[in-house]
Formats: sequence, structure tokens, C-alpha cells
Amino acid sequence: MINIIDHVGIAVRKIEDSLPLYRDMLGLRNIRIESVPEQKVRVAMITVGEVKIELLEALGPDSPIAKFIEKKGEGIHHIALRTDDIRGELKRLSSAGIQLVNAQPTRRGTEYEVAFLHPSSTNRVLIELCQLLV
Amino acid sequence: MINIIDHVGIAVRKIEDSLPLYRDMLGLRNIRIESVPEQKVRVAMITVGEVKIELLEALGPDSPIAKFIEKKGEGIHHIALRTDDIRGELKRLSSAGIQLVNAQPTRRGTEYEVAFLHPSSTNRVLIELCQLLV
Repeated sequence: MINIIDHVGIAVRKIEDSLPLYRDMLGLRNIRIESVPEQKVRVAMITVGEVKIELLEALGPDSPIAKFIEKKGEGIHHIALRTDDIRGELKRLSSAGIQLVNAQPTRRGTEYEVAFLHPSSTNRVLIELCQLLV
Repeated sequence: MINIIDHVGIAVRKIEDSLPLYRDMLGLRNIRIESVPEQKVRVAMITVGEVKIELLEALGPDSPIAKFIEKKGEGIHHIALRTDDIRGELKRLSSAGIQLVNAQPTRRGTEYEVAFLHPSSTNRVLIELCQLLV
């Protein structure tokens, strides 16, 4: 079951260039920056109510974010839906004919397990499922 | 002040073609469909926790959504941040150098006043400010 929208991911060239908009202009001050080497990204998590805006910067040219920006430029990258049973959801969605980027969830930083659905099955919207690690 | 993320807008060709993913596959059942002729869109609002996914279908070829899809295809279109003082926020952001698509908010359906910030000021992310009508 999908409980909430966990975050909206935005691909940016440099977190430091984008942060002033969200922090100083829009006044969003609940910000945590971390590196997630296993996904080749550096991340600024900006909490707004129950949802986070996730600014994603590539850690190197082979990062999925570098490839996204090269192809489409900076912009909204994905939407993440939180579940409390990511393995069950992936199994259910796969059985229902949804193509998965990740058949099994992968660890993402200290906080999540995540998996992406394939945009060919989701009207070109990159959807991430995530589950909080307990 | 920005209080919460109100919704994430997704441009789709036909709401009826996209809805099964969100309703039947992802199991999101809190859905309301309405036409918003003043913005030339038909909208499916899918509530997930405190945030909504807004599927946007063009009402005619001169709709901003028709133009977006023509240029970029279906996909995530904008992110909407809710404030309780949209006029004050627009004035403050404009003074701070942010370019606005709408200097004044416009009525959107029965529920909101809305205004867009110009993507040239927001690292190519289309950001909507919205305020609930009281």
C-alpha cells in the first residue's frame, strides 16, 4: 500500500546554485545535505510538511543524474511514493504488468530502501517506491 | 510563508489512460475529476496523505498542457507550494528578483488562487504558488 508522497526529486547541476531559491527565496529552512555514493548522487533533502524536495547533484559523469541533465537539462526528475512493504509492492506491480527498473530494492543512504518503476509503464513519469529502514 | 507542498502536476494526454496506473496499480483511491476551463485543463486530483497528484489534460490545442506535451511529451509538469498569503509572497519574490509568470494570482476552479514563477528564475523547475480560497 502507498501511504504518502515521500519526496519529489529535482535534478540540478550544483546544489549550492539551486539552494538559495529554496532556502532564501522560498524560506524553506529544514535542509539536510548528504552524499549517497551507491547512487552516485549528492542530495539536499528539504522538508516541507510531510514531504521533502530532494535536490540531486551528480557525483561524476556516470551518474544517472548527469545523464538526465545532459539529455533534458535541469528539472523535476522523479516522484517518490512511500510504502511499508516495498518488496510486496514490487512483486504485486510486476505481476500486474508494470515494468521495473529494480526488481529488488536497493539501500539508499541511511534511511531508505528504494526501487524505480520503468517510465515506459508509467506514462513517462519516473516513479520511485521507497520504504523507511527500521 | 510556504506551508506545504500542495500538489505535483503531471501532464497527460488523456486522464482516462493514466488513471489506471494511479488508481488500480498503485491503489490510490481518493480521486476527484473536474474541468478548469479558465486554465484550459481537465484535472484529476489524487490525494495521497497531505499532498495531491494532479493529472492535467489539455482542453484544446491552445492549452499550456497541449504545448508542454507537444514540446516535451507526457511527464511531471510542475510542483505547487501552498501559502496563506499568495499576494505577499509574489510581491516579496518579485522584489527579490524572481521573475513571475503571473504578477497577480488567478482563480483556479472552486478551491484555489494560483500563480506561477518563471522557470528562468527557478533552475527550469515550474513552481506554482497556491492559496486556498476561504
